[in-house]
Amino acid sequence: MRFEVTVLGSSSAVADNHKHHSAHVLNVREQFYLIDCGEATQIQLRRYKINPLKINNIFISHLHGDHVFGLPGIISTLGFLGKRTPLNIFAPAPISKYIEYHKELFESELQYEIKVHEVDHTQHQLIYENKVMEVWTIPLRHSIASTGYLFREKNPPLNVRKESIERYELSLQEIVAIKAGSPLRLTDGQIIENDQLTYSPYTPRSYAYCSDTSASGRVAEIVSGVDLLYHEATFAEDQHTMARKTGHSTAKQAARIALKAEVKKLIIGHHSSRYKSAEPLLNEAREIFPNTLEATEGETFKIDLVSTKV
Amino acid sequence: MRFEVTVLGSSSAVADNHKHHSAHVLNVREQFYLIDCGEATQIQLRRYKINPLKINNIFISHLHGDHVFGLPGIISTLGFLGKRTPLNIFAPAPISKYIEYHKELFESELQYEIKVHEVDHTQHQLIYENKVMEVWTIPLRHSIASTGYLFREKNPPLNVRKESIERYELSLQEIVAIKAGSPLRLTDGQIIENDQLTYSPYTPRSYAYCSDTSASGRVAEIVSGVDLLYHEATFAEDQHTMARKTGHSTAKQAARIALKAEVKKLIIGHHSSRYKSAEPLLNEAREIFPNTLEATEGETFKIDLVSTKV
Repeated sequence: MRFEVTVLGSSSAVADNHKHHSAHVLNVREQFYLIDCGEATQIQLRRYKINPLKINNIFISHLHGDHVFGLPGIISTLGFLGKRTPLNIFAPAPISKYIEYHKELFESELQYEIKVHEVDHTQHQLIYENKVMEVWTIPLRHSIASTGYLFREKNPPLNVRKESIERYELSLQEIVAIKAGSPLRLTDGQIIENDQLTYSPYTPRSYAYCSDTSASGRVAEIVSGVDLLYHEATFAEDQHTMARKTGHSTAKQAARIALKAEVKKLIIGHHSSRYKSAEPLLNEAREIFPNTLEATEGETFKIDLVSTKV
Repeated sequence: MRFEVTVLGSSSAVADNHKHHSAHVLNVREQFYLIDCGEATQIQLRRYKINPLKINNIFISHLHGDHVFGLPGIISTLGFLGKRTPLNIFAPAPISKYIEYHKELFESELQYEIKVHEVDHTQHQLIYENKVMEVWTIPLRHSIASTGYLFREKNPPLNVRKESIERYELSLQEIVAIKAGSPLRLTDGQIIENDQLTYSPYTPRSYAYCSDTSASGRVAEIVSGVDLLYHEATFAEDQHTMARKTGHSTAKQAARIALKAEVKKLIIGHHSSRYKSAEPLLNEAREIFPNTLEATEGETFKIDLVSTKV
């Protein structure tokens, strides 16, 4: 029951030697979600042993090259590898035009369907769900339409407490009804509320990806309480004017959002190439939010399943 | 006075782990020419310490992704790095449309000019020249319009032989005329032909790049006598039917072209991912043309200047 993020790249526009542009892969119980797709993402997938055919959903934050130029390569390679199931691509406009142009010039014989979903970058809304997970947009503030993504496991089916079963001598029928959320009516007419009878077997896990963006209070509200927040930190605090001007954040601002949102862990990246080391940015962030780590290329951040067995 | 080719990548469409798609850089006396531009070419340039700003001319063989998906990244990065001089891009159609689409979606503020030159892939013709070098197209046979490129140093200015100067007691005026190609008329009316009086100070060097293509006799004629030939060798000879069907060559066919053209050295690449090692392909080629090497990523093939001082 994995829930883990592998960083394929977190460099800003002018990447340093051996570093790669933005791309993260979220593995939720062996379903893989690609978040941003900078140039060479397909090479990074190979390097970190992630089978591209396992990716059926790609989420692009915005249409700047350092977040999207790996998309044509992935699309073509999936064709070569024999993909036949649809590929969903979520991104702000003009993603439809980008994919249309790509198909016109390069994919006259593509054997699978690309389903393009243009998301409204101004809204916080549910854009994808399956049995176990939901994906929500996070409105960001950048020089062009940009959106973050919040990945959240759904609440698991309720378990009925053992002591309730024993105490009320519950029938199978009653157990099924209680698991579905019903209260229990005793023979004397007394009502036992559902939450007195049940528990959630584990806490749903969550990951939020926010890049590129100026610091935003709305982001802090939306990512409230997530297990892992990736927030861009292009600049150090002494460059906060530059950050605001270019639609980016400082490390301190990223940390303030993590603190305000009471997230469990913050990872930062997308540092300007002027910073030869991430240390000063990490130090700055940790003054505000100690549990900050660098979104180092190749690193996997695992979020363990926390059982709530009672 | 360098003339050297650095291989940034020579993988075929489905690249192996850590290998990169096609891109070669030719350095002619510190002028850099990029030939093909597979995904991650800008990263490979950084890896091998080649300043992208030194590249003013890009030659694309054909518009399959593994030869061209690095172009958008290079174009954007050159903008970030402050390029102001024009960038020439040579390629078969529809390169104009590809660049136009890219500019429409990603380069609203590009600060330098992109000069697109759609080359006729059916013709062997001069498409670029400067003081020291010429570039000619080489018609290739592939599933889409594809062209090779022949890079050839120009003949250097002639030198007048010392013994001619002494023997005929040449005046400065006569020397200038002879250097420009004139014969010498002696006082007794006798004519001494120019080639009796002069020599070329060095042999012009040449490099030919041929990928992707079926084996072609016309290619052998055009690349006749070049110092270095890169020829694709996607398959081994036992797959020659597959090679013909897909518009590719076998290692043996590449070697036969090198032999027929009497080139000095052959380098092969673009091997199908079915070959985990280049050894069988190299062995096959060397049976026909012993001076065959693998176009290994990161390797630089230098062509020394051969002085012809007399």
